[in-house]
This record gives sequence, structure tokens and C-alpha cells, in this order.
Amino acid sequence: MKIIIVNGPNLNLLGKREPEIYGDKGFETYLEELKPKFEKVSLTYFQSNIEGEIIDKLQEVGFSYDGIILNAGAYTHTSIGIGDCVKAIATPVIEVHISNTFSRETFRHQSYISPNAKGVIIGFGLKSYELAIQSFL
Amino acid sequence: MKIIIVNGPNLNLLGKREPEIYGDKGFETYLEELKPKFEKVSLTYFQSNIEGEIIDKLQEVGFSYDGIILNAGAYTHTSIGIGDCVKAIATPVIEVHISNTFSRETFRHQSYISPNAKGVIIGFGLKSYELAIQSFL
Amino acid sequence: MKIIIVNGPNLNLLGKREPEIYGDKGFETYLEELKPKFEKVSLTYFQSNIEGEIIDKLQEVGFSYDGIILNAGAYTHTSIGIGDCVKAIATPVIEVHISNTFSRETFRHQSYISPNAKGVIIGFGLKSYELAIQSFL
Amino acid sequence: MKIIIVNGPNLNLLGKREPEIYGDKGFETYLEELKPKFEKVSLTYFQSNIEGEIIDKLQEVGFSYDGIILNAGAYTHTSIGIGDCVKAIATPVIEVHISNTFSRETFRHQSYISPNAKGVIIGFGLKSYELAIQSFL
Amino acid sequence: MKIIIVNGPNLNLLGKREPEIYGDKGFETYLEELKPKFEKVSLTYFQSNIEGEIIDKLQEVGFSYDGIILNAGAYTHTSIGIGDCVKAIATPVIEVHISNTFSRETFRHQSYISPNAKGVIIGFGLKSYELAIQSFL
Amino acid sequence: MKIIIVNGPNLNLLGKREPEIYGDKGFETYLEELKPKFEKVSLTYFQSNIEGEIIDKLQEVGFSYDGIILNAGAYTHTSIGIGDCVKAIATPVIEVHISNTFSRETFRHQSYISPNAKGVIIGFGLKSYELAIQSFL
Amino acid sequence: MKIIIVNGPNLNLLGKREPEIYGDKGFETYLEELKPKFEKVSLTYFQSNIEGEIIDKLQEVGFSYDGIILNAGAYTHTSIGIGDCVKAIATPVIEVHISNTFSRETFRHQSYISPNAKGVIIGFGLKSYELAIQSFL
Amino acid sequence: MKIIIVNGPNLNLLGKREPEIYGDKGFETYLEELKPKFEKVSLTYFQSNIEGEIIDKLQEVGFSYDGIILNAGAYTHTSIGIGDCVKAIATPVIEVHISNTFSRETFRHQSYISPNAKGVIIGFGLKSYELAIQSFL
Amino acid sequence: MKIIIVNGPNLNLLGKREPEIYGDKGFETYLEELKPKFEKVSLTYFQSNIEGEIIDKLQEVGFSYDGIILNAGAYTHTSIGIGDCVKAIATPVIEVHISNTFSRETFRHQSYISPNAKGVIIGFGLKSYELAIQSFL
Amino acid sequence: MKIIIVNGPNLNLLGKREPEIYGDKGFETYLEELKPKFEKVSLTYFQSNIEGEIIDKLQEVGFSYDGIILNAGAYTHTSIGIGDCVKAIATPVIEVHISNTFSRETFRHQSYISPNAKGVIIGFGLKSYELAIQSFL
Amino acid sequence: MKIIIVNGPNLNLLGKREPEIYGDKGFETYLEELKPKFEKVSLTYFQSNIEGEIIDKLQEVGFSYDGIILNAGAYTHTSIGIGDCVKAIATPVIEVHISNTFSRETFRHQSYISPNAKGVIIGFGLKSYELAIQSFL
Amino acid sequence: MKIIIVNGPNLNLLGKREPEIYGDKGFETYLEELKPKFEKVSLTYFQSNIEGEIIDKLQEVGFSYDGIILNAGAYTHTSIGIGDCVKAIATPVIEVHISNTFSRETFRHQSYISPNAKGVIIGFGLKSYELAIQSFL
Repeated sequence: MKIIIVNGPNLNLLGKREPEIYGDKGFETYLEELKPKFEKVSLTYFQSNIEGEIIDKLQEVGFSYDGIILNAGAYTHTSIGIGDCVKAIATPVIEVHISNTFSRETFRHQSYISPNAKGVIIGFGLKSYELAIQSFL
Repeated sequence: MKIIIVNGPNLNLLGKREPEIYGDKGFETYLEELKPKFEKVSLTYFQSNIEGEIIDKLQEVGFSYDGIILNAGAYTHTSIGIGDCVKAIATPVIEVHISNTFSRETFRHQSYISPNAKGVIIGFGLKSYELAIQSFL
Repeated sequence: MKIIIVNGPNLNLLGKREPEIYGDKGFETYLEELKPKFEKVSLTYFQSNIEGEIIDKLQEVGFSYDGIILNAGAYTHTSIGIGDCVKAIATPVIEVHISNTFSRETFRHQSYISPNAKGVIIGFGLKSYELAIQSFL
Repeated sequence: MKIIIVNGPNLNLLGKREPEIYGDKGFETYLEELKPKFEKVSLTYFQSNIEGEIIDKLQEVGFSYDGIILNAGAYTHTSIGIGDCVKAIATPVIEVHISNTFSRETFRHQSYISPNAKGVIIGFGLKSYELAIQSFL
Repeated sequence: MKIIIVNGPNLNLLGKREPEIYGDKGFETYLEELKPKFEKVSLTYFQSNIEGEIIDKLQEVGFSYDGIILNAGAYTHTSIGIGDCVKAIATPVIEVHISNTFSRETFRHQSYISPNAKGVIIGFGLKSYELAIQSFL
Repeated sequence: MKIIIVNGPNLNLLGKREPEIYGDKGFETYLEELKPKFEKVSLTYFQSNIEGEIIDKLQEVGFSYDGIILNAGAYTHTSIGIGDCVKAIATPVIEVHISNTFSRETFRHQSYISPNAKGVIIGFGLKSYELAIQSFL
Repeated sequence: MKIIIVNGPNLNLLGKREPEIYGDKGFETYLEELKPKFEKVSLTYFQSNIEGEIIDKLQEVGFSYDGIILNAGAYTHTSIGIGDCVKAIATPVIEVHISNTFSRETFRHQSYISPNAKGVIIGFGLKSYELAIQSFL
Repeated sequence: MKIIIVNGPNLNLLGKREPEIYGDKGFETYLEELKPKFEKVSLTYFQSNIEGEIIDKLQEVGFSYDGIILNAGAYTHTSIGIGDCVKAIATPVIEVHISNTFSRETFRHQSYISPNAKGVIIGFGLKSYELAIQSFL
Repeated sequence: MKIIIVNGPNLNLLGKREPEIYGDKGFETYLEELKPKFEKVSLTYFQSNIEGEIIDKLQEVGFSYDGIILNAGAYTHTSIGIGDCVKAIATPVIEVHISNTFSRETFRHQSYISPNAKGVIIGFGLKSYELAIQSFL
Repeated sequence: MKIIIVNGPNLNLLGKREPEIYGDKGFETYLEELKPKFEKVSLTYFQSNIEGEIIDKLQEVGFSYDGIILNAGAYTHTSIGIGDCVKAIATPVIEVHISNTFSRETFRHQSYISPNAKGVIIGFGLKSYELAIQSFL
Repeated sequence: MKIIIVNGPNLNLLGKREPEIYGDKGFETYLEELKPKFEKVSLTYFQSNIEGEIIDKLQEVGFSYDGIILNAGAYTHTSIGIGDCVKAIATPVIEVHISNTFSRETFRHQSYISPNAKGVIIGFGLKSYELAIQSFL
Repeated sequence: MKIIIVNGPNLNLLGKREPEIYGDKGFETYLEELKPKFEKVSLTYFQSNIEGEIIDKLQEVGFSYDGIILNAGAYTHTSIGIGDCVKAIATPVIEVHISNTFSRETFRHQSYISPNAKGVIIGFGLKSYELAIQSFL
């Protein structure tokens, strides 16, 4: 079973940015902890700050992978292009967010991805990714 | 570990209403399938069509249970009272929805519960409840 | 032919509230005048100020009765739950209003019931109910 | 008793336009079926695609007829002029619609006629006209 | 000096409609009283309930008359077409209203004519027309 | 002089919920302190989390009591039904709030009760109730 | 007959500000030209940039003068206080504007004065004041 | 191949209105230049300032012609009736505009015709009509 | 205990303006009746129609008085400056209104003062001031 | 004559995505069919999913080419940057869309490109590109 | 070189109001520190809480000074009159704010002054004034 | 002291685009003039049309530089991602704009960067950059 995690802008700063809040664990470290829990899953990871590169990646894997876990970060709220891509590809996409976007600024309450996603998981911290993998099993 | 599932209005019609869409499985039947998967969890169930009875129940369990899984149905979008209650009680609440509320009418995109919930899980069908339990483990 | 009239909040005050405007005839009295006009119709009546009890009643009769005449009063404009129920049940529902809701406050112009109703009859005073019964014949 | 039915734009296409949906019965044919049901009513019919001709007609009959049944079609949602006229004339006006305008596009939810109408009947198909006549009896 | 008064929908009902409010004087009668006050003005009058006929008339006189006094009635608030015409023609147009449109419904506060008018006179009763003529002298 | 205090949803949690903020005094305890200050007033108390039960109670006392002090909690902002009831009954209603609703979320700035209330008292903590009683003297 | 012209903020700059547009004639000069045209009118003039001083003046003359001609300038669009005062006093108020406010920025399309004014005259340049005086005769 | 061009209000002023902007060529003259370019097309032309006459014409040709090129002018933005008619008839309709409506006032950005048109061509001057004909070939 | 009542624009017209509605009692007269009820309170009074003078006064007393009772009249709804001042000073401010602002025009429903006030009292007529003093005791 | 077609995000999926709807023809294949129709035109093609690369390309060709045909896909509705670039460069830009964007979601009705484009062609399928080339001839 | 600093409402409270946040330095003290840095500049200072006095001052200096530095405080967001004045006078105006108005309440994000200002400097604390002076050199 | 200037989309066209308006000086030329004025500052420059590359650069310098001067061009108004990044990094960011964005289109009045910036400088032409450097000294 092939699953990819796709992270959007600024998520590469995890562990470095405001560590007293977000902790000092980077996403790669978390990924190493996550993989052993799902032995039957081939788990890939991709991050980019560039909207179009995220679209490129979704298109690349979107007709052969079994699942995509997408945290598009700030692009969640502005990118019709990523939303269109999620709809166009064949692989089901789970939208995840680390923080509770609904208790933050109003402009984070709208998502162009949600209407096209297979499911949405919000606010469980890094555990949101783990729950997303479980949803594919 | 004591967890309760609280369902709101019209969710008692599952299995009876538009069975060609929602299937012919009632929520109680699903519950019987769910319980054996989580042997260490004491799982209770409550349903009401009355907004205030849901508040009553949340208050009753909200200072002693370990977790609440809340699908407030239509009240999700209109009940400030349930949202206030989720904030006031001590037990963490996971908001779940069976269908993808974001691909439905605009008035279903707003939730008074989300800002106060520990996490939100949307659109995985009945599996949304199972993922919510896993999030507590 | 089994038809039920379901009235929502404050409609039990008819005849008592502002009698110089609404007249001094209570709804039960009106009902007694109405029944003889439709001898072949078995006409039942239910009133509640509680949103969820209206949903309970609609679910109870909504798979066996031939018609429901619903004046949800103030809940017309705020209850997504009643609107969902009208859609979920099998019995056709006619929405009625005694006064012309469109010549009153703006918040009374929106109805969550109308989109799911078989038909809508507004502004004919108590005669709105009689027209609704005729629509089923 | 003199009653007139006034139909607005595109309603002359009934029976010709999308017959698999609207049926192949034109409005004149329906009118012939309707008249015998109300022997004591002198029933006239007028249709125009021109907003101002509808106003002309309303003014012409609006001080002598006993009732007007008005389906202003698309002008319902844009014509302040027809709405003003309904208010200015002496004959009571019943607003009718064949389809359920509330389950269609948002711009069809607003009516400039409703606030000035004696009553509103929506969504009963062609039977809406018959109910309107009954409301005058 | 050639000036025309152009009146829109329902203004032909003056004197007939709600006489206890608007008085029992029709516009033609008023016109006869108005003409002697301006001996050097050749004053014409036109009324129509049809939006397009008002445009036709404005185009007809709009390149040869010295002034147009336009009370477009309800079309004031909805007709981009009349507004465009006022802009396109060469004769200056004064917009007048009998009643104070700003103390009535909100939808009467917007005018598509005002931005293109030479001046606007509102709320002086029938005297609004007289002031408009004076503005041309 | 018969006065009743009617409290809405979650107000029964006072003293239990976030005691470091709201203090550890429940409403019943406060009531015992309040009564001796107004010896000539017969003071009753009612609380419910159910919107319709609040309407039931208002109707029950609304034609015989001298005053109603209503803190409808979250229903203040969503219940057209309670607002209608306040208008329909004969007893004057004072709307009170413990906290300053205007310095909280925007959706708490609107009240369906205020337009029909005799007066509004907001933000004085529990003292809001005492001021309301004084307003009746 | 006693009439006062009240001008609001920045209108004292006429003749000085952008003379190639507004001309080099100050308001006082215009006033001297205006007075001889109305021999039977005792015409006074007041200007202030201070909102409250305009209210003071309106109150001072508003129970004894025969007419007030008010060009509140920018305060037209923001001052509920001046609007309330126009409503409270006994002397009728004509609202005038030199330029066509409806062909300028959107925020100039709203007036808090218009709903309470006896009449409104807009866009005739300085002649707007003359027409206002004529309206009192 | 039978194609008709239908023009709406004020388009008959082309060549006469602001010739320094729009040129001094009337639409009929342009039409004479256009016809020879499409020898196999039978090209008809219709213009009216009256909304309802445009509907009449669309209905008349809309079940027998091969194509309709519609520039509804100002009615584009306000006429639900023309939009409904475009949807009801069988002949495909191409919506054209001479100027770029999107670089003009906001109220010209909305079209009730576009959702029902086969295609939309905007801003090419009179060449918009020629491109529309080419689209049918 | 030093308390000041600060009144905003047009409140000096009380007793003079529409006496059949507001009564013929001016505010100073009322003040004389009020003072004896609170013997231990040193009660001062200030009124101005000028927004900035109200700010001046609030700043003058806002660091030494025990309480301020502020009825800012129309400035309530437009003055961010007064709202900022209420926040900046040390003395607690009670906002009062004589009439029920929530049953009047929509623009009176917003207050820039409420979020910064210690409490709000609305709609009790002149008694609102008395209740405000009681709230300080 | 040098013309370039610039396609935005997801348009590279044509032929691959939902072939039963969009057909199985990729854009490159279509391009090969298009070129022979315009022998005198040197036709280039560029596609990118990255907003900034589209800006790069427009800047590169925008001072030397004769025409640009731009289908910015989802960026049409969100990219002020592309809109600014279209305005800044010297080469005229035709905006095209394959589907009728006005019959899709509301957020596709707004375009930041249209106000700066020479012309707009919408809804003709792949033929939109061909019409755009013809507009340059 | 003559430059004036004009401060609006509540800015006279600097040093006195919430000193733990704003520091204990009054504006006059800051001014004494600022002057020696710009020896060639004749620096004047004016503060008022009254909107119209600010307009008066701007008019007084606005045709002879070399520069105006304007912090209109709360009037920034509500005063069309000050905005108009900035446009009308000849001296260039720099708008400054001490705090970052964009990270505060939404109603502080709009400025009627900015569109007419030569430049805007926001959020540098008291240093905003110093940068404004430098911009004139 | 290490400071970087980061410019967004289309700013590389300076000197080339509309030279009669923007002058014929490119940004690099300006930079050469700027550097000698600040001898103690190590000044770097970066420009990109790609949103994500701007984020990349901000992350790269954002934990080691002393200051960032950011003119995000069109991304100012649409990029939540750049705004988030400005908040996440440690180096203070000054937002600058060459033109007065507040006197341009409405969509340029909103900035996702301002709430997180240390300060904002708008409308001084290229001098905006110089003032930004001075603010760091």
C-alpha cells in the first residue's frame, strides 16, 4: 500500500519555529517515529513552499498511489488550483491540519480542498497524520 | 476508559431513511460492530432530537468521562448553546460528521462546535466514529 | 386519508394573544370547524414549543401518514434540523403560515423548510390550513 | 365573481419547452380544464413577456375585478414596478408559482410581489392556480 | 425652450390611487396648472409603464430638446438601461421624485439614473417638477 | 409583587464551570442572598437547557406575573421563538446578561429578545439580576 | 420669512480650493448675489467645521425660523447626530449638495439627513441653494 | 444556415452616440460589411429597447434557427426573464459584448445570460459579432 | 462618592422636543428629582453636542471620579474616539440609553462604547440613569 | 506573426482526467491539429502549474510577440500578480476558458485577468483557442 | 522648512494612559527630543480631541506650510471631513500611526485619510513621526 | 548590520514598464544609488515572481539577518503563506509599497503581511525603501 504525505508552505519550519509552542521536533523526526507503526504501508514524504510544485506532485502520484495525505498549509485557504487537482486525480486525498483552524482567524475557516477531499481531520496535532493513515486501512 | 457517543437530530433515522444511499444499517447495529474493536473502552451511546437534552447529557458526563464523540447533526450549525457547553465542560470533545459537510449547502460549512473541540473528523462515513475513538488512545 | 397538522412555538397562544388582532378563536376551536368540511380525511393535531419534539413527531408519522401540514412558527427560520427531517421522511409536507411572513421582519423571509416542502401556502390567515388540505385531495 | 389569471414571461412556452419535464400541456389547455370546476367564477386569462404590459393589465382590472392570480415569472424577482402596482390597486392579488422557487437559484428566493400580496401559493405545479381560486371563494 | 416631462410606471394612477394620501388630482390636471407659470417653455408630457418605451422616448427627444425631467418611478432602482440612455443622449436630464425615496424601503435608496443626471430633486411632492423647470431657466 | 427569574442553557453550571473565573458560587446560593434584599417581592426561579421549555414557562407566567427577568444565555442570539413569546405575553420582560456580550464574539452582539424587552441590563455580573428587580420597583 | 443656510466642513474653502474647478467665487460672494433675488426673505448664513456646532445652530434656529437649508458636507454621510437633530426640530430642513454626490465615491451615496429632510436637491452647483429657497415660497 | 443577431437597449444609438469614442458607423452599416464574409449564412438582425420584445423574438426564432447572437446590453445584468428564455429555447445562444464589461462598473460584471449561453465573447469591439458567427461554423 | 452624568448630542432637547412622546420634563428637572435619592453621592452633570468636548470631559474626570454614566446619544454608534477614551481612562463607565435602541433603526444597534463599558443599561426611560447610579453602590 | 498559448494549472491533465467528459485528446494533440489552420502564424505553447513561472513567461514574450492567448485556469480567479503582468506588458492578451466558468461555482465568476485583457472568450471547448487566434487576424 | 505635527483624539493621554504599555513619556517630552535632530526644520505641534478643530488647523496651515504630519487617531477611521480636507489643501500630508493598526480591530483597518495622503507610515511607535520628517527632506 | 530587500512579482519590470510613469530607472540602478547612503549596512537584494521562492528566501535569511524589507507586490493581497512566514521567522520585517495602495483598487487595500510586520511604509515611491532602512538604525 503506497501512501504519500504532502506538506505545504512553512511546515518545513516545524521544530525550528516557536519551539516553546510547537515543540522542538521536526517533521522528519516525527516521520521516523510514524513509519514503524504501519509496517505494511510504504510511506513517502514531500514538502514545498511553491503552490505549483504541490500540484505537480499531486499529479505525479495521483493516478498510481493508494492514498494521499495533504496538509496544504496556507494554500488550503487560497488555492483553487490545488483544490481542482484534488478533484481531477484518481487517488483519494485526506486533508489534515495540525492546529484547529476553526479557532484561528476567519480566513482560515475556508478550504478549497475540503469539498473534494475523501475526508478531513483537523486539530489533533501531529497525530492528525496518524489518524489519516488509519483511515486508509 | 469511559467514552460516550452523542448523536443529534435525525441520526436515529439511519438505516431507515433513504436506505439506497445511507445503507440499511442502523446506528445501534454499527455500535455492536464497533465495541469489540476497542475492548478497553467502555462505550456508551446517547441520541436525542432535542437541543437542550444534548446539553443536559454533555453536562452530565462532561466532568467524569474520558472522552465525548459528538455528532450534533443539524444543531452543529445553529446551536451556540451546545458550543458553549463543549467549552464549559472538562472532558475533551471530538466533533464528527458522517458526510462531507463542506461539499453540501453553504449553511453546513459553519460549526459552532469546532472552535471549542479538541479535534474534528469529517466525511469518513460511519468510520468517522472509529477514528475518533482511536484519537483518544 | 390520514393528515396531521403540526404547529410550532407560540401557536398555542392563538385566541389568547393580542385578541384584537388575531381574534379570540383558539386553534382547537378552528379545528372543530375545519373537520366537518373534509369528511374523508382523518385529521390529527399536534403542537409543541420544543424543536426536537416537532422532529420526533414528524419522524413518528412521516412513514405512514398521507400528508403533513406544518406551520413551524419561528423554527421555520432557524431550524435546519426540522428542514432535514422534512427531507428525510416519506410523507409529503405542506408548509403553511397564517400571516404574510414576507411583509414582516427580514429574518422571517428565510425558511429552511421551503426547499424540501411539496408546496408552500402563506398569508391566508387560518384559511391557509384549509387550502393545504385541499391540495392533498 | 370576476377573476383574472395574469402570467408573466416565458409562461407561454408551457407544453413546448422541455416537455419531458413540464409535460406537453399548454396553459390554455389547462385553463379549459380549470373553468368547469368553478362555474360561478368568470375566469379571464392574460399573458405577456413585457413587464409594463403586465402593469397596464393590473391597472386595467385592478379597480373592478374581484381577484387577481398573478404568476409574474422572472419579473417576480426583479420588478419593483409590478410590486408597486399590486400595492396601488384595490383588487386583492394572490401570487402563485408552479415550481418551488425556494429549491432553485438564490435569486429566485426574493419576491417584490409577496409583501403586497394577499397570499402566496408556491410549488403545487399547475394546481397552484386552482388553490388560488379556491382561496377567493 | 423645449422641455419634456417623462413619467414611469404607476405614475398614471395619481389621483386614483389612495386619494386620501396622494390627493385626487391626476398628473394631467397638475400639468395644466403648471404650464401657465412658465410661458416661455414649451412643455410636453409622456408616461409609460414599459421600460423600453421610456428609453425609446428619451432617445427620440434626447438630441433636440433643451431639457428632460425624468421621474422613472420604480425603474429608477432597477433599470441600467434607462441610466445608460441618460448618459448617451445630449439633452441634460433632471431626476425628480414626488415622495422622499430615502425614507422608504432600502431598495429605493439606489438609483441608476442619479450618477448620470444633471441634478436630482427629491421629496417636494408635485412641486419637485416645478423646481426642475426652474433649474433650467 | 410576583417576579420570576428565567435562566437559559449552561447557566446551571455557574459555580462549577471555570471557578477561577466565575467564582464558586452557584446561582441558587446567589438567589438565597438576593431574596432578603427584596422582602416585598415574591421571587421564583426557573432554569432549563431546552429552548421550548423556556417558551412554555414564559407562556405559563406571562399573563399573571408582574415581571420576568430573562437571561436566555446562548438562545438570546438564535431563538426567534423566545423573542416572539416575549412579544406575545403581557408581563414585561427585562433581558439581563452576566458578562458583557459586546466584548465577546460577534455572534453574541445580536439579540432576538432585546427589541421586545422592556429594558436591557448587560455586564454587571450577578448584580445584573439585582438591578433588574430594582427596575420593577 | 426667515431662512438660514447652514454649511458644513470644508465649504469655507470655496473659491480658494482648486479654483480651476470650483471657480474663484467664495460662498459669501455668492450669498451677496443671491439675497437680492429674494427680497421678502431674511437670509442668514452659518458655517462650521465642527459637527456639534452645526447641531447647536440647528437647535437654536429650529423652533423659530421658517426654513433651514443644510449642506452638511462630509458630515452628511457619517453624522447620526445631525440627522437626529433634523428630525427633532420643528423647522423644515432642505438638504442640498453642490456636486452630484451619486457620481462620486460610494461612501457619499448614503445620507443620514435625507430620511428626515423635507426635500433633497443635489448636483446643481451653487444653484442648488437658490432652488431650495424657491421651494419654500 | 440561419443565424440572427439580437441587440438590446441603446445599441441602436451606435454611430450617433459619442461618435469620437464609438466611431460614426451605425450597426446597420456594419451589418452590410459583415454579410459578404459569410456567404453561406442567412443573417437576420433585430433590435429592441423593450425587454419583453427581446423575449418574444428569442421565442419566435428559438426553435427553428441554427444560432442566435445576443447582445442584451443593459438587460444582460438585470433580466432573469431573458436568461430563462435562453435556457428554455432549443437554438444555441452566443452572448457577445462590444466593450470589455469587466473593466467597467461592478454591476456590469454579472450576467444572467452567461450561465445558459453556449459561449461568451467579450471586448473585441464590433468584431465580437464576427467571432460569434465563426464559432457556429 | 463622585459620579458624573455625561450626555451627548440632542439630549438637551428633552422636554422641548416632541413633548407628547418624551414628556415635558427637561433633564435638569429630572436631575433635581434624582439627587435627593442618593444623598451620599456627589452628582455632577455635563452635556455637549460636540464629540471632542465629550472626550475632553471624560479625560478630565476619568482619573479622579468614582463613576461615569455616559449616554453618548448618536455618537454611541459612530465615535471610535469616545470608545477609545472610555478604554483609556481609569474610572469605570456605565453606558445608558433612554429608549430601547434595539427596537429602532439598524444603525443604532452597534455601539463603540459597549465593549469598553463596565455595564450597559438600555430602555428604562429616564430611570436608566437611576439604575446606573445604583450599580455603583 | 508570433502568437503564444499559455496554459495554467491542471490543463496538462487534458486527455487523462475524466476522459469520458473531457475526451481523450491531450492539448499537444489538439495543438497539432490547430497549427495547419493558421499557416502564417508562428504558434508556440507553454504550460505551467506554477503561478510565478506563468508571470516569468508573460514577461519574456510580452514585449516582442504579437499576441498571447492565456488560459490561466484556477489562477484566473486568485492571481492579482498575473493580472498585473497582463497590464504591464505590451503584447495584447486574449483570455480564454474551455468550459463556461459562469455556470460553475461562484468563485469562478471573478477574474483578475479580464479587466486588463484585450478580449475574453469563454465556453467554446477547445475551439475557444481557435477563435482567439482568429481575433488576431 | 515649516512642518507641523497634528495629533487627534486621546493622543494627549500619552504617558498617562496605561504607562506600563505606552511608557511614561508624554508627546511634548518626545517632541523636545525630536527637534534637535532636525535643525533646519521649524517644527510646530497641535492636538485636539475635536474633529472640526483638526479641520480648522489643516486649513489654516495647508496653503503655507511645507509639510503636515497627521495622526488623526480614531478619526482616521470615521472622518470623511478630515479626508476631504487633506485632499483640498496644498501642503502634502503624511499619515502616521504609532501602533500597527492592521493588527488591531477590523474597524481600524479602514482610513479615509490614506487615499489622499502623500505617504503612510504605520507601526514604528513614536519613531513613525521621525521617519515622516525624514521623508520630507 | 545585515539587511535584505525582497521584491515580489512584476517589480523586476521597473524601468521597462510604462517608463513615462515609473521612470526609466530599474531597481538595480536604484540600489546602487542607495547603498552608499548606508555604509554600515550590508544590503542584499532578491526578487522573484514565484510566491514559494519568496517564502524560501524569507526562511533562509529569517533567523540570521537583522532586517528584512519586503515589497511582496501583488502577493501582498493574496498570500497567507508569506504572511505566515513573516510571523514565523525571527528577523523583523518592514512592509513597503512604492505606490499608494489605498488610492488604487479595493482589492489592494487588504494585506496579509501588515498584521505581522514590524512596520508599514506606503506611497513614497522608491524612497519607501530608504525610509525602511532608516527605521532599522
